[in-house]
Amino acid sequence: MDYKQTINNLVEFIKNEVESRGFKRVVVGISGGLDSAVVASLCKLALPNDTHGILMPSKTSSKIHLNDAKLLCDTLDIKSSIYSLELLQESFCKTLNKNITGIEMGNLCARLRMSILYNYAYSNEAIVIGTSNKSEIMLGYGTIYGDLAYAINPIGDIYKTDIFKLAKFLNIPKSIIDKKPSADFYEGQSDEEELGFSYAMIDEILKQLEQGIDIKTLESKTNKEALKFVCARIKSMEFKRQMPTIAKIN
Amino acid sequence: MDYKQTINNLVEFIKNEVESRGFKRVVVGISGGLDSAVVASLCKLALPNDTHGILMPSKTSSKIHLNDAKLLCDTLDIKSSIYSLELLQESFCKTLNKNITGIEMGNLCARLRMSILYNYAYSNEAIVIGTSNKSEIMLGYGTIYGDLAYAINPIGDIYKTDIFKLAKFLNIPKSIIDKKPSADFYEGQSDEEELGFSYAMIDEILKQLEQGIDIKTLESKTNKEALKFVCARIKSMEFKRQMPTIAKIN
Repeated sequence: MDYKQTINNLVEFIKNEVESRGFKRVVVGISGGLDSAVVASLCKLALPNDTHGILMPSKTSSKIHLNDAKLLCDTLDIKSSIYSLELLQESFCKTLNKNITGIEMGNLCARLRMSILYNYAYSNEAIVIGTSNKSEIMLGYGTIYGDLAYAINPIGDIYKTDIFKLAKFLNIPKSIIDKKPSADFYEGQSDEEELGFSYAMIDEILKQLEQGIDIKTLESKTNKEALKFVCARIKSMEFKRQMPTIAKIN
Repeated sequence: MDYKQTINNLVEFIKNEVESRGFKRVVVGISGGLDSAVVASLCKLALPNDTHGILMPSKTSSKIHLNDAKLLCDTLDIKSSIYSLELLQESFCKTLNKNITGIEMGNLCARLRMSILYNYAYSNEAIVIGTSNKSEIMLGYGTIYGDLAYAINPIGDIYKTDIFKLAKFLNIPKSIIDKKPSADFYEGQSDEEELGFSYAMIDEILKQLEQGIDIKTLESKTNKEALKFVCARIKSMEFKRQMPTIAKIN
């Protein structure tokens, strides 16, 4: 991949999509992680004065990520807002009269963030920019109608391991590039520990599957457990990459 | 349309989708309107003991609709829960430090309802059943990642005027069949007043467009203003019927 050329293409993609849809601005959720940093950086290049970042830490979000998110907005010199999800999280527990925790709360926070981004977009002639990478999308490692919900996504066809490489050509703080990928559902969470395999291994398999190499051939040259895991996830999470199923009449 | 046969097919559709996806139950948001009543009624036929209805009135929801929603759950004899959105609406205004009203609040409530339905689904081995009809979907008359977000939809290929006809073959209270269609964003709202044309006129045009009749021919035989409106909406709301746009690499 020619990273400099890719960056130019993605900047053009953002500009064209915003303009052809009749909007003026973009809004991105900034988590403090690498993917949203790369997306915000691309947006800044595309729309220097019309990129807005929104930081939406939850009760259990790590302070490290929040500080990195702030640092990114300063480094890129983009306008930003911070909205803590704490009150909304508590209100959900009260409304549903239950103690929501773990993955359930993670999914809820992802949907609260989507709702806040879309609310901003509605009142500011903006479109919501997605930050899911190709590895996450293929594995369905994200919340449907949460972080997987947006108008356009400049990095959805780029594997996580290539995002790291792309990031080096962008204006992104080293602390963000260097830290471990995390969905930040809870303190100290690590994507790779949760998935059970490294992105290096996952992406190697995903890339070979994309090239059409058959499973039997792959079995002989990659980690069998990882291959099994990746193939099962691609299949079971297919619904997250598709529109809802509507019953056909006639 | 053979309504009795259609009902049988839709009941089979729901059963098959739930089973093939490996779930046990369905959950439906019940508004008190006709579409969700039809969907809940179909679900009850498909999964008599595993259909759960959730009523989620907002601050401005009409008491008439709430009472009709309760009446429906009693009539169908399905389990149900009621969660007022009031606290969540107030918490959003506090969190975003602004007074959210009108369409903005309507969209927000639609996304809160989706979040509650998905939370229920996650903890109860259930899937979320959509309630948008074909007229709404074609016109994009709904909230993206709100009421337009669900796993499956049994009535998404049925025009609103045909939903009324189908409803007569189902166990639905007369008060629900007889009242005017309303998104219930505010007291006394009427879909047809808001859209500017009756569903009878809109559906006539949508059906002819679906049959492939060209615009010029249609211009001579239908209301030109309505035709212009429908064609413009179909185009401008296309994004609501598609997955997000992902930038292609190479």
